[in-house]
Amino acid sequence: MTAQKIAFHADASLSPLAQRFQQLRKQTEALIEPLSAEDCQLQSMPDASPAKWHLAHLTWFFETFVLEKFEPGFKPFNAGFRVLFNSYYNGVGDKYPRPQRGLISRPSLDEVLSYRTQVDERVLKVIAATKKARLAELTQLIALGLQHEQQHQELLLTDIKHALSFNPQHPAYARRWPLAGIHPQPVRWHGYGGGLVGHGFDAAQDGDFAFDNETPRHAVYVAPFEVASRLVTNGEILAFMADGGYQRPELWLSMGWDWVVRHHQSGQPGQTPLPLYWKEQSGEYRNFTLHGLVDLDPNTPACHLSYFEADAFARWAGARLPTEFEWELAARALPAAASQSGNFVENAAFHPLPQQEADHGVPAQMLGDLWEWTQSNYNPYPGYKPWEGLVGEYNGKFMCNQFVLRGGSCATPRSHMRASYRNFFPPDAQWQFSGVRLARDI
Amino acid sequence: MTAQKIAFHADASLSPLAQRFQQLRKQTEALIEPLSAEDCQLQSMPDASPAKWHLAHLTWFFETFVLEKFEPGFKPFNAGFRVLFNSYYNGVGDKYPRPQRGLISRPSLDEVLSYRTQVDERVLKVIAATKKARLAELTQLIALGLQHEQQHQELLLTDIKHALSFNPQHPAYARRWPLAGIHPQPVRWHGYGGGLVGHGFDAAQDGDFAFDNETPRHAVYVAPFEVASRLVTNGEILAFMADGGYQRPELWLSMGWDWVVRHHQSGQPGQTPLPLYWKEQSGEYRNFTLHGLVDLDPNTPACHLSYFEADAFARWAGARLPTEFEWELAARALPAAASQSGNFVENAAFHPLPQQEADHGVPAQMLGDLWEWTQSNYNPYPGYKPWEGLVGEYNGKFMCNQFVLRGGSCATPRSHMRASYRNFFPPDAQWQFSGVRLARDI
Amino acid sequence: MTAQKIAFHADASLSPLAQRFQQLRKQTEALIEPLSAEDCQLQSMPDASPAKWHLAHLTWFFETFVLEKFEPGFKPFNAGFRVLFNSYYNGVGDKYPRPQRGLISRPSLDEVLSYRTQVDERVLKVIAATKKARLAELTQLIALGLQHEQQHQELLLTDIKHALSFNPQHPAYARRWPLAGIHPQPVRWHGYGGGLVGHGFDAAQDGDFAFDNETPRHAVYVAPFEVASRLVTNGEILAFMADGGYQRPELWLSMGWDWVVRHHQSGQPGQTPLPLYWKEQSGEYRNFTLHGLVDLDPNTPACHLSYFEADAFARWAGARLPTEFEWELAARALPAAASQSGNFVENAAFHPLPQQEADHGVPAQMLGDLWEWTQSNYNPYPGYKPWEGLVGEYNGKFMCNQFVLRGGSCATPRSHMRASYRNFFPPDAQWQFSGVRLARDI
Amino acid sequence: MTAQKIAFHADASLSPLAQRFQQLRKQTEALIEPLSAEDCQLQSMPDASPAKWHLAHLTWFFETFVLEKFEPGFKPFNAGFRVLFNSYYNGVGDKYPRPQRGLISRPSLDEVLSYRTQVDERVLKVIAATKKARLAELTQLIALGLQHEQQHQELLLTDIKHALSFNPQHPAYARRWPLAGIHPQPVRWHGYGGGLVGHGFDAAQDGDFAFDNETPRHAVYVAPFEVASRLVTNGEILAFMADGGYQRPELWLSMGWDWVVRHHQSGQPGQTPLPLYWKEQSGEYRNFTLHGLVDLDPNTPACHLSYFEADAFARWAGARLPTEFEWELAARALPAAASQSGNFVENAAFHPLPQQEADHGVPAQMLGDLWEWTQSNYNPYPGYKPWEGLVGEYNGKFMCNQFVLRGGSCATPRSHMRASYRNFFPPDAQWQFSGVRLARDI
Repeated sequence: MTAQKIAFHADASLSPLAQRFQQLRKQTEALIEPLSAEDCQLQSMPDASPAKWHLAHLTWFFETFVLEKFEPGFKPFNAGFRVLFNSYYNGVGDKYPRPQRGLISRPSLDEVLSYRTQVDERVLKVIAATKKARLAELTQLIALGLQHEQQHQELLLTDIKHALSFNPQHPAYARRWPLAGIHPQPVRWHGYGGGLVGHGFDAAQDGDFAFDNETPRHAVYVAPFEVASRLVTNGEILAFMADGGYQRPELWLSMGWDWVVRHHQSGQPGQTPLPLYWKEQSGEYRNFTLHGLVDLDPNTPACHLSYFEADAFARWAGARLPTEFEWELAARALPAAASQSGNFVENAAFHPLPQQEADHGVPAQMLGDLWEWTQSNYNPYPGYKPWEGLVGEYNGKFMCNQFVLRGGSCATPRSHMRASYRNFFPPDAQWQFSGVRLARDI
Repeated sequence: MTAQKIAFHADASLSPLAQRFQQLRKQTEALIEPLSAEDCQLQSMPDASPAKWHLAHLTWFFETFVLEKFEPGFKPFNAGFRVLFNSYYNGVGDKYPRPQRGLISRPSLDEVLSYRTQVDERVLKVIAATKKARLAELTQLIALGLQHEQQHQELLLTDIKHALSFNPQHPAYARRWPLAGIHPQPVRWHGYGGGLVGHGFDAAQDGDFAFDNETPRHAVYVAPFEVASRLVTNGEILAFMADGGYQRPELWLSMGWDWVVRHHQSGQPGQTPLPLYWKEQSGEYRNFTLHGLVDLDPNTPACHLSYFEADAFARWAGARLPTEFEWELAARALPAAASQSGNFVENAAFHPLPQQEADHGVPAQMLGDLWEWTQSNYNPYPGYKPWEGLVGEYNGKFMCNQFVLRGGSCATPRSHMRASYRNFFPPDAQWQFSGVRLARDI
Repeated sequence: MTAQKIAFHADASLSPLAQRFQQLRKQTEALIEPLSAEDCQLQSMPDASPAKWHLAHLTWFFETFVLEKFEPGFKPFNAGFRVLFNSYYNGVGDKYPRPQRGLISRPSLDEVLSYRTQVDERVLKVIAATKKARLAELTQLIALGLQHEQQHQELLLTDIKHALSFNPQHPAYARRWPLAGIHPQPVRWHGYGGGLVGHGFDAAQDGDFAFDNETPRHAVYVAPFEVASRLVTNGEILAFMADGGYQRPELWLSMGWDWVVRHHQSGQPGQTPLPLYWKEQSGEYRNFTLHGLVDLDPNTPACHLSYFEADAFARWAGARLPTEFEWELAARALPAAASQSGNFVENAAFHPLPQQEADHGVPAQMLGDLWEWTQSNYNPYPGYKPWEGLVGEYNGKFMCNQFVLRGGSCATPRSHMRASYRNFFPPDAQWQFSGVRLARDI
Repeated sequence: MTAQKIAFHADASLSPLAQRFQQLRKQTEALIEPLSAEDCQLQSMPDASPAKWHLAHLTWFFETFVLEKFEPGFKPFNAGFRVLFNSYYNGVGDKYPRPQRGLISRPSLDEVLSYRTQVDERVLKVIAATKKARLAELTQLIALGLQHEQQHQELLLTDIKHALSFNPQHPAYARRWPLAGIHPQPVRWHGYGGGLVGHGFDAAQDGDFAFDNETPRHAVYVAPFEVASRLVTNGEILAFMADGGYQRPELWLSMGWDWVVRHHQSGQPGQTPLPLYWKEQSGEYRNFTLHGLVDLDPNTPACHLSYFEADAFARWAGARLPTEFEWELAARALPAAASQSGNFVENAAFHPLPQQEADHGVPAQMLGDLWEWTQSNYNPYPGYKPWEGLVGEYNGKFMCNQFVLRGGSCATPRSHMRASYRNFFPPDAQWQFSGVRLARDI
């Protein structure tokens, strides 16, 4: 599995839309190259889905929202797939129960790949054949479908990591371990004056696509603040643990402490809770990664932290998590180059990487590496309107009991990220590539 | 049970602090007058507590945080009470498991009332004896203890209502039903210009006490908006139900719809879910209240709605819930008289009352009647610092997965309410006196 | 609380049936004398019921099965009680959910006692007035009602013990601790030849009443066996624990080991599971009893053992549990006096007592002290027919996943016991006065 | 998938033991021929295992209990498999959690088949090389391993049926549907005199192998009884349903009724519970089988009944389930031919078949078709001793809360069955090929 394969080059004779479509669809397939049909079948929890399901569901999206609308004489590839591979669109009809997605051995992986191939060909034909009058609408739907494709590329990786972690033989997704020489960097603080600022998607800066939840752009008052120059590292989490971090309720939210106690009791008696994917072997910490089980590196950003852990660590460190307003303000102040140089999925590192050199006057690792928990709840922006039609179920209905994460990760496609992008997960979620950047008042 | 009893007159020869202490402590005891020792023992869910536990816990608070610090030669009334009646203060030591509070038959109610009497006498002595140098500190702790006392007065009522509702004989807490002649009022809308406004506790307007979570006062930008002139009524909920409100997932948050489905499946097959305490009898709706089972009145504000129901109703009505910033802004614009005239616990109505006459140019029912769900998560204000010491566990640690409610209810003591007051509950909570006031963008 | 009160003397002018009725009904009321109304309200698990519920349900039984049938112009005391105090008789109609019995504060204890008094008076009138033609039927129903009364006398004690055990102040039901000087007795073995024997209720030996589950008497082939001369003691359980009894899966049934693991994980980490009501304090074992928390006595029979513990202990001891056929055969071989001399509830000891003197050629403690687990499942005897009518729900429908216990306990009324009596509980039940007598093949 | 493949012919040059080993090992592999690697990965509930796990576990058994003991210089195929494929032998060491067996994508199916091939070759070498002195011991272990192999052949089929049933496209395991012309047969009754009879394994009648739980042979007294001439059919279950069978608590054990209510509530509201694998489509009943979804045939034996359903049906029919003593007595009275002619797995029918012709004076379908629930608990026979050593965990530790089934099914290998064979499952288990034969007293 190499970076070359992920960054597939599309057929240059196609239209730009068709090229982008072809490129991103192939990128998804490149990600399952290291996996067997049996791997692609695994579902380790209701929140995660089998890789095969991702492959099929992404195709279902184009079949249902593009072909059904734009293809003359549309006939479904397989009528049953409409139910099997619907995720949560109540408007589309019935859906197969999420926790049972791992019980679908048929269609096989091969059949699902054929489904992809056929639908791709039909979408390319539709792109070529659509008249100008409807092209804007088609382009918009395909753009949405490709954003959706990219979201699931990331989920495919975090879900398979979770699934493989149950195998006591610690199988690797990709063998090459990305860590080379490391030059530890101290934390520095970067300050921002705040004030009444614009917040949310801005086409001038953020490109030609945004989800409805990034809009409308609106005024927010932000007090002066500063953020850390890099992500929190494994070594800092070790210091937190050595100071009784997982044993002191005063460091935790009440609900976070309940979560610690629950984890503790379901584990081996007498053991300290560990961050997800950490294992203790003969007194040493080891870390399950997409490259198998490796030694825990103290300079690597700490990942797979829940919001509860992120919040408790920040409290222990005498700091706090940033709000999403602060984060976006800081991200918009980055030089243009920074947003292109992050550790995204196209790196094929599949793991956050240590900060290798001093920052250049701006915070490092803002984009890529790890999603950064903010203290902001995932709420509608003032004046928010969900999209109309079936795709209106995309975002708004999840605005409850979730926290916003920003910046993308080592599993996020590079072109998927922008300063206004809002990811969101419940506070106990750990299986995403999530980490912590500290903030504090000035 | 009459209003006179709740509004007890304290001994006029005492200092103002001592009078207020005596008055509010007696107010709590007045609330259990209609209850037997067996009633006071009931615990119907882990989130609710027995009335006897409330009585004892409130006394534990004064014993632990006041007497232990200020009484020379302090000795506990009963050393075991330190554990038995601690609610959630990890800093104080062990606590008895919350779901088992209903299993404490001993001490008896009589013994708990003696505990109250003795601690009250000792606190009054401490107030009289404390030297000037420490009086400010003592006053502050007693003020906190009395705010705490008032919070539990409300919980005592909502908890006993919940507990009595399990009795198929529908026992009444108080017999007198407060509804008289009703003059239905249409909804009107009141607009506000917004802008960059101050938000949070302001001693000049809000009096001499605030919880840490109401501070610091800070700037917020609010866009123009309008709010409804009154609370949503039972009749409006009936219209929502008639329009398939509980059957249409598109009206609900994803998590809210899961909640509906769960409620539905655990109930009788084929039945429509009903708001809490509604019952269908021979095709008519009846309502369990603190006055027993009564006919459902369409003009009375709809109460015991969860956030999920409030949010779905608002979406169905083409409106939304206000933010807490909007709510506070509107509340601060009320004439001074409005904040004194609400339907609070001292009314002894124990139920929200219909709006009886047209509003006088400002929204009615803002204070008292029902807590109003806002769409704001219960988060720290910028620059928030929890109190120091043990009482620091009071508020901040609950800032997760809860929504803010504003305005107080028919079970809230009048002097407990202020424009900056933030109540908070998880989105599925129904057993508080919670309702809906609609808002919308201009 | 004294033995005198339990053994109430009935009004000698009444008929023998009426006297027995009056005596046993008063015996139940004597058992709640040490309890407050709040104590009588407690329900600590779905399997246990509040004392107040027992008092009311026993009265409901006479009202429903006797008065409703025999009293001219019958009117219920309170129509709602038919649902509230029905236990499990589907034929009678609806029943209130069992896990919520502790939520019924009204009727109060006083009202329930009035219900008892009124129904008792009416039953006595019915007894006096019933014509000869129906007297046999009436006598049979009252006999059943009184057996039922006695069963609940025992449950009332085991349920209140369980409920009080949740109180960290270890309240006592009765203060007087029954243990006097102790003379430890070694185990001896008593052998029986077995063969083809009659099994089940035999009116000639067992008196004038049996439940349907004790019938019909039938032939069983029993191989030669021997049983221990006394019950297993706390000291023997300590030896089992010291030998790793709770850590060695090979000693346990698979389902029993799951039970141990589950208990272990829900308790404090690192702690050895303990028998129910044992507590460790500073390295010493203490025992919660109906007399409060006392030192654990090594010579006292070990009680509150589950079937799983009984079975594992027997395996460890190189023996086994007896079958119910063996137990009954041994019990029928006892001298007549033995069945009268056991430690039953009328002793007011409320706890098993150590064997004080050598056995007289027959096993000691067969009757009273503790129910003895057998390895026999609670199954229908060949040719078993449930009673006809509503009372047919009494026994047969529970014949699944339960084990038979024999011999009665310190909480069983003396006149309730006979050699053919079959008690039954699921293998994880601990809250009855249950213990172990070993058996082995010859 | 044909009968020929299941009945593989072994290499005639091998010793009889080696031939039998080779033949039965191949028979297992023949059963997965219709399955893909993805199918073999499925685990639909903790009680069921993936086909791949069965294949590996069966090999683990020979590797652990035969090769490790008999092969000079033994080295494991893969040391990690010792944990991964241990089922429940605590004596062997750790085991992988049962509910997670479906999460093992690696080793792949191909690798597991290689594991089988290699271990098979090594076992054949060991058979050839073992000296006479140890041959008896080796033969005994291999015999046990092959019995174990056959048990899992059946489980492999019932588990894959359960897993495939979750696929809404109703995939077939084998296409050929075995039902041909049907000649309905009325029920007749066959009587037996009973008396004091020998019960349990008898080498003279039952062959050269028995599990420890079939021993020792012992005397049992059996009263006269009769059994039905055939199994209960789908048509008879339809009559039970039409008569309110699933709505009438009086027909059910108390625990069975709870099970019905639980099933009812978790299903679609308002729907009648159906036997497992029945579906209603437009008012017609359809049946999911290993041949896909087919019309429900009224003359086919009703299968996948739980003990609760079997017991309730028998009560409704005015009969009862046989004891295992009665069943064995009747089975021993069959003519020798009957035990060879049953519908076993070698038929490749994979479903019970209707009785096609009148019985010849003895009950039909006693062997093969369906396991028959008895009312006997799975208990140790008098004098029962578990095998010594690690294999002692095979049977005895499951003797709790299970009922005995007799006679084998359409998924059982023919040579696996004998009159003394005891299968056992908990009363709510449905996924085995289990059915009902009625019995009654004479």
